[in-house]
Amino acid sequence: MILKLPEFQDIQEAHELIKGQVHRTPVLTSQSINEMTGGKLFFKCENFQKVGAFKFRGASNAVLSLGKNQLLKGVCTHSSGNHAAALALAARMRGIPAYVVMPDNAPAIKKKAVESYGGRITYCQPTLESREKTLLEIADKTGAKEIHPYNNFQVICGQGTAAKELIEDSGNFDIILCPVGGGGLLSGTAISARALNPNGLMIAAEPEGADDAYRSFHAKMLVPSINPKTIADGLLTSVGELNFRIIQRKTDEIVTVSDRAIIRAMRMIWERMKIIVEPSAAVPLAAILENKIDVNGKRVGIILSGGNVDLENLPF
Amino acid sequence: MILKLPEFQDIQEAHELIKGQVHRTPVLTSQSINEMTGGKLFFKCENFQKVGAFKFRGASNAVLSLGKNQLLKGVCTHSSGNHAAALALAARMRGIPAYVVMPDNAPAIKKKAVESYGGRITYCQPTLESREKTLLEIADKTGAKEIHPYNNFQVICGQGTAAKELIEDSGNFDIILCPVGGGGLLSGTAISARALNPNGLMIAAEPEGADDAYRSFHAKMLVPSINPKTIADGLLTSVGELNFRIIQRKTDEIVTVSDRAIIRAMRMIWERMKIIVEPSAAVPLAAILENKIDVNGKRVGIILSGGNVDLENLPF
Repeated sequence: MILKLPEFQDIQEAHELIKGQVHRTPVLTSQSINEMTGGKLFFKCENFQKVGAFKFRGASNAVLSLGKNQLLKGVCTHSSGNHAAALALAARMRGIPAYVVMPDNAPAIKKKAVESYGGRITYCQPTLESREKTLLEIADKTGAKEIHPYNNFQVICGQGTAAKELIEDSGNFDIILCPVGGGGLLSGTAISARALNPNGLMIAAEPEGADDAYRSFHAKMLVPSINPKTIADGLLTSVGELNFRIIQRKTDEIVTVSDRAIIRAMRMIWERMKIIVEPSAAVPLAAILENKIDVNGKRVGIILSGGNVDLENLPF
Repeated sequence: MILKLPEFQDIQEAHELIKGQVHRTPVLTSQSINEMTGGKLFFKCENFQKVGAFKFRGASNAVLSLGKNQLLKGVCTHSSGNHAAALALAARMRGIPAYVVMPDNAPAIKKKAVESYGGRITYCQPTLESREKTLLEIADKTGAKEIHPYNNFQVICGQGTAAKELIEDSGNFDIILCPVGGGGLLSGTAISARALNPNGLMIAAEPEGADDAYRSFHAKMLVPSINPKTIADGLLTSVGELNFRIIQRKTDEIVTVSDRAIIRAMRMIWERMKIIVEPSAAVPLAAILENKIDVNGKRVGIILSGGNVDLENLPF
């Protein structure tokens, strides 16, 4: 199947569409982290985005791009994380239903988040098979359109607006960094980076324990993770097909980092910047701390992807 | 002794003096906290200030106000908290010594903070008597000028610049709120509030377990705390004399809150705003949550005093 790949023009259109309802999040810097790393780091704070993560950009674009005939029927997904909450809120803001399939053993905190944004939850067994089957049933019954959390044209375009704002607000960078899980954020970021910051490097950082993007990038073919394991719970998913095609074309390098460095980076951001980020958001700084990326004397733009953590269960 | 009380003109001068070296911290809002409380809350983020607390304003003003003859001799204090770190950094930025007397049982994290900013620590026994005696010895030996953490004209003027910025940046308020411990922040805030926001109420919030400001305010005389106990470790000190005179004249009300509400408010700020604040900073929101202050439909300016917490020892 030939997939149409999003271009920067599509991200510009997405930005026009969503900018009335997404936060233009601030870009923060930290003198002490700059001193420790030797670089000039600019952090795009998507932890301050609605729903606490960049995911609200993609979900908003997907919902706002729906045709009129689809509006009554709504949207659906089987994500149980930030995407589900983001889709539920974006749907509610447009007054349409969002159906979310979740495993019945999902943490109470995630169920609560989706419910609080008005998502209609259907529980299933905690297997991918059950999730997909239940989602199909829901989609059949309701006519709701599935919005995949990352392997989706409109979602990618929405995610790319964060890097667009970062470059617009803080100028050009020697390096742009973001984490990679399913690749929604990375593929969107890479499109914006190539268009607006063509002389800089686009590098992604990935946990060692869920390194399918790294392996796929170097093998030049999709190699999904088997039993991925990392503290960065937002990055357990394997890269999507559409995402991978973009990543192959527009990313300069993917590096991997240890969970130990992720926890250290997360703690450094909490302590030095006084902001809350989730482990996944700390992965790019972890790569700098582990000397996987040389930032000495360089201007570096970093997407802090989100801030949803369970305060009862911190890694430090 | 007749004490000269600071006026708003003194805060304006302090602001001119320090604004090259203090952050003009952002004012954040939270839609979900507004929905929960019914008010329009504007949070002045002094947790993003240098050293992680508003204390850097007062310390900067004290250090930058020193006469030339005093510069070589430096400054000293026996605070062991945010003020000591703030004074150490302000002194280092001016290239002068800061001597800090600390009890030998002070937490390692506090010693480290003061050291990292270049403070010269002298350890003493963990009694007020030993601290004061050791400070006197240091001051005698070095000629360093003692900068009291709150009962000090220049410190009060520096602290008042936070509220000045808040009103300048976010307009007039129906209510301005801040926490009260020694009263440095409250006295400075109240001077700015009366001058720039004369039609609004100036209310302070204090932990129940360290309620000397509340009792003093209502008794119209200083009533120090005996064995204060609260999770808000920055508010254990009793109000200073100079501070109390200003508070009596310029504060409309002082309310007290339970530690339980403080922890709830702190957690709400972490979870909803994705920023890190220390328990003391959460005290004003705690007062709103405990219905001690009615904010329904009102514009409320709140000073978030600081963000220095021990991540190993969170109350949730």
